[in-house]
Amino acid sequence: MEAKKENGGIIPGPTNPMVTPLLTDLYQFTMAYAYWKAGKHQERAVFDLYFRKNPFGGEYTVFAGLEEVIRFIANFRFTEEEIAFVRESLTDSCEDGFFDYLRGIDCFDVEVYAIPEGTVVFPKIPLLRIEGPIAIVQLLETPFVNLINYASLVSTNAARHRNVAGKSKTLLEFGLRRAQGPDGGIGASKYCYIGGFDATSNVAAGKLFGIPLRGTHSHAFVSSYMGLDEILDKSLRRKDGSSTCEDFVSLVQTWLSKIQWSNSLRGIFGETNQSELAAFISYAQAFPNKFLALVDTYDVMRSGVPNFCAVALALNDLGYKAGGIRLDSGDLAYLSCEARKFFCAIEKEFGVPEFGKMFITASNDLNEETIDALNKHGHEIDAFGIGTYLVTCYAQAALGVVFKLVEINNQPRIKLSEDVSKVSIPCKKRSYRLYGKEGYPLVDIMTGENEPSPKVGERILCRHPFQESKRAYVVPQRVEELLQCYWSGISDKARENLPPLKAIRERCITQLELMRPDHMRRLNPTPYKVSVSAKLYDFIHFLWLNEAPVGELQ
Amino acid sequence: MEAKKENGGIIPGPTNPMVTPLLTDLYQFTMAYAYWKAGKHQERAVFDLYFRKNPFGGEYTVFAGLEEVIRFIANFRFTEEEIAFVRESLTDSCEDGFFDYLRGIDCFDVEVYAIPEGTVVFPKIPLLRIEGPIAIVQLLETPFVNLINYASLVSTNAARHRNVAGKSKTLLEFGLRRAQGPDGGIGASKYCYIGGFDATSNVAAGKLFGIPLRGTHSHAFVSSYMGLDEILDKSLRRKDGSSTCEDFVSLVQTWLSKIQWSNSLRGIFGETNQSELAAFISYAQAFPNKFLALVDTYDVMRSGVPNFCAVALALNDLGYKAGGIRLDSGDLAYLSCEARKFFCAIEKEFGVPEFGKMFITASNDLNEETIDALNKHGHEIDAFGIGTYLVTCYAQAALGVVFKLVEINNQPRIKLSEDVSKVSIPCKKRSYRLYGKEGYPLVDIMTGENEPSPKVGERILCRHPFQESKRAYVVPQRVEELLQCYWSGISDKARENLPPLKAIRERCITQLELMRPDHMRRLNPTPYKVSVSAKLYDFIHFLWLNEAPVGELQ
Repeated sequence: MEAKKENGGIIPGPTNPMVTPLLTDLYQFTMAYAYWKAGKHQERAVFDLYFRKNPFGGEYTVFAGLEEVIRFIANFRFTEEEIAFVRESLTDSCEDGFFDYLRGIDCFDVEVYAIPEGTVVFPKIPLLRIEGPIAIVQLLETPFVNLINYASLVSTNAARHRNVAGKSKTLLEFGLRRAQGPDGGIGASKYCYIGGFDATSNVAAGKLFGIPLRGTHSHAFVSSYMGLDEILDKSLRRKDGSSTCEDFVSLVQTWLSKIQWSNSLRGIFGETNQSELAAFISYAQAFPNKFLALVDTYDVMRSGVPNFCAVALALNDLGYKAGGIRLDSGDLAYLSCEARKFFCAIEKEFGVPEFGKMFITASNDLNEETIDALNKHGHEIDAFGIGTYLVTCYAQAALGVVFKLVEINNQPRIKLSEDVSKVSIPCKKRSYRLYGKEGYPLVDIMTGENEPSPKVGERILCRHPFQESKRAYVVPQRVEELLQCYWSGISDKARENLPPLKAIRERCITQLELMRPDHMRRLNPTPYKVSVSAKLYDFIHFLWLNEAPVGELQ
Repeated sequence: MEAKKENGGIIPGPTNPMVTPLLTDLYQFTMAYAYWKAGKHQERAVFDLYFRKNPFGGEYTVFAGLEEVIRFIANFRFTEEEIAFVRESLTDSCEDGFFDYLRGIDCFDVEVYAIPEGTVVFPKIPLLRIEGPIAIVQLLETPFVNLINYASLVSTNAARHRNVAGKSKTLLEFGLRRAQGPDGGIGASKYCYIGGFDATSNVAAGKLFGIPLRGTHSHAFVSSYMGLDEILDKSLRRKDGSSTCEDFVSLVQTWLSKIQWSNSLRGIFGETNQSELAAFISYAQAFPNKFLALVDTYDVMRSGVPNFCAVALALNDLGYKAGGIRLDSGDLAYLSCEARKFFCAIEKEFGVPEFGKMFITASNDLNEETIDALNKHGHEIDAFGIGTYLVTCYAQAALGVVFKLVEINNQPRIKLSEDVSKVSIPCKKRSYRLYGKEGYPLVDIMTGENEPSPKVGERILCRHPFQESKRAYVVPQRVEELLQCYWSGISDKARENLPPLKAIRERCITQLELMRPDHMRRLNPTPYKVSVSAKLYDFIHFLWLNEAPVGELQ
């Protein structure tokens, strides 16, 4: 997609070329036509994009998806073909002038204020505030919500997995095959990286975003071998290139026998699976510098681990260092501990330094609960490979992001509902995060656009937006304005640049560490407080009474 | 993406241009390299793609995603840029020859046999059988699983929603904003249509696939109006063009007053919300032939429905017929019944034929359970608009599709597991659906490639693949071979053409109707039986004993 110039320079189009102005709901076009027909389409509207509830039973959310949103609006233009399709879809004899209007629109009269991508965020606080001609902003609703909903959900899911796994573990995203469609997979890789994962198996995501890649081999590779006679070229060159071992297969077999009859390991295993051994040798010949083997195709402790160790020790003789094993089934806690004991015994018995620290990766339908259970049992796993539960957000497959009109022509608007949690907070607003003495964020507060901002050291009343009795005075030690301008169209306003992915990831990690630990607990976390100023509170309730019909008891 | 010629003609590339040969796991490349290094890459392998368990607690699945798979392999080629990236990712000094090999590969030496898209399918039976050089077929695993997993899952989810809603209801897919990424949304629209939905709100999907589009207006449209004085042009031309009503607003107001003071409706409502009335009038002026109003922005029965009826009756005076209402909150069963009563009262009171049959659409977090509950309560809803729960498959966000090696160089392979349900069924196989006297499918059976096929009227023993005691004789009245050739590369084999989307949808609807009703129940359905021939059964167990290590009790 073609890039356009605005005051901040060139911004490329969305990562997925299918993200076009047609990626929206039909009613955005019917409304645009009705606005246009009524001469209302240029009226200046303000919409807030926010969510109502943190996902996964937690009390925090990671905000993500902003870059794609900005790339989308920076390049928002209809092609003739798209306009022809819209005309065909709005069958009701719409006037030609409307399609001329569509032909001319872009987002250069729109402004987008947003919380920086990778920030820890909370319900009700606008993640984005979008201002512009109502007909145009309305067309943006669906793609904005689509681009932010899943991005924020899966980043949050990744952060929660990191939280339970701990900082020292390596986390690998392996979800592409089970993701909801191709860019469900590509998006998952990007946003799990933001949420704190270390690498992905998804090559396309590696290429698009520079995310580190990981991967070794599958069960099919192991079972594609029938036996050692399939290895035609038995040689392997030493790492330093000084010579070549002509029969690496025999070297491995010798080691296998030594292990089998060693003092500390005698009796643990008998004859190992020879097709597995052939597969491991073959893989080691291809990747002698990073030999990492999947050890559960036949039997982990009676075949996979001994076969792996024999190959690893033979590699060691030639100056290489093996990478480790992957477990993909069974009792991962138990098997990782048994494998660790086996590695340590080898280190001791054969004097191979660090062999006991061999890297153990585990996969197989892992999620927050299973990692938590592994931690409770005790395990020796160094890396978790996580797929289905992570990328599909199995525990909660959507975040309820909404996009609500809060002002039109400088008139505040409110959306009422019998369900108080669904009442929107009117007015063009500012939001601040107030920090306490210990450096933790204490509360987020929304104010009217023109209210003075909270000041460090000055007491301010923070009110629950809907519950009269919930309020607290706060004396902030630091005040952070949350919404920054990320898109100012052709206006002169300075805007933030889009940071690189690594910077977003760093921000996310730092933000998560900054939170008070009780908000971050996996079970029964303390809710973080979200509030409005006293003035905004009064105004909300004035407007509410004004708009709500008075009931009659009969 | 460029299209290539094979024996069946030109096949375009995947719908999503991000579906490239790099959309795969890194380990597919490391394995490809290891196969190549060992001289094993050209060995002929057979893989089965299947799932192990029906989703959503049901006993059936709709197979979808085949067209995208075939479009992918028909155009499978690496670009130089992609090869450079793979080289960079496989850091371990891989030999140049491998990248020359990658440069030359395509899928013209691969064959794909598949069950037709839109067929009702069951666990363990291969949905696809893929044959070809092992290194190439291995590269296809991840994209194939990705393209089929979500497609089949969401088609099945759509079919389940149709099943509970009933044939007479209109089902609308409204999920784009909550889908897992942009083509989570586009894929959902396509595959929900296959599963039996009638239309989507997603304009991009409408354009790509020709799916009917639906949509009217949102709450924001209603709340963007402040009052009737915003309507500058008050006129509306009669449908027949014979004259123009110069003050349509007054006509509506007159009707509102008539309704309010009519014999049967007196006392039901007082003053309605005037900004809502303005929005409805404005929308009707834009779309007089399909005026459909969202009636719950302020109060359904005290404001939305009376306002709608006043506009609908004024339209009726000018020769137009209103389209109906949409309810998006509250007790949908109760409100739909109240609205229906109101419409019927108007039909009777003012003699407007068919006004009582006004179309009622309901939305708001609907899913199988809530539709079932609405049915139990009784309701007057004609159409359901379903989003989040449908497109994200909230009840179960992934289908466990797997891709297993079953044969290499004509040698059958088995993957063992301590969990019997994870043991793979070896051999290149054929599958058949056997039909009984009443026309229902009775059982699916897998046989070895070269066994004679089951014959109509001939008794055949069908065995559970793993449980010795589960077996039954069947005398089929009809035998249907399930796997058809959909991709034969450059070989001379005839292949099936890819049917158009509407034909796939028709197949799916017909297939679902063909099933015995007890398999289709929402709760406690009867499992459909899946079996193997006696010969295949014996062979599986011979191979299993051969490969499994013998334990030693200590």
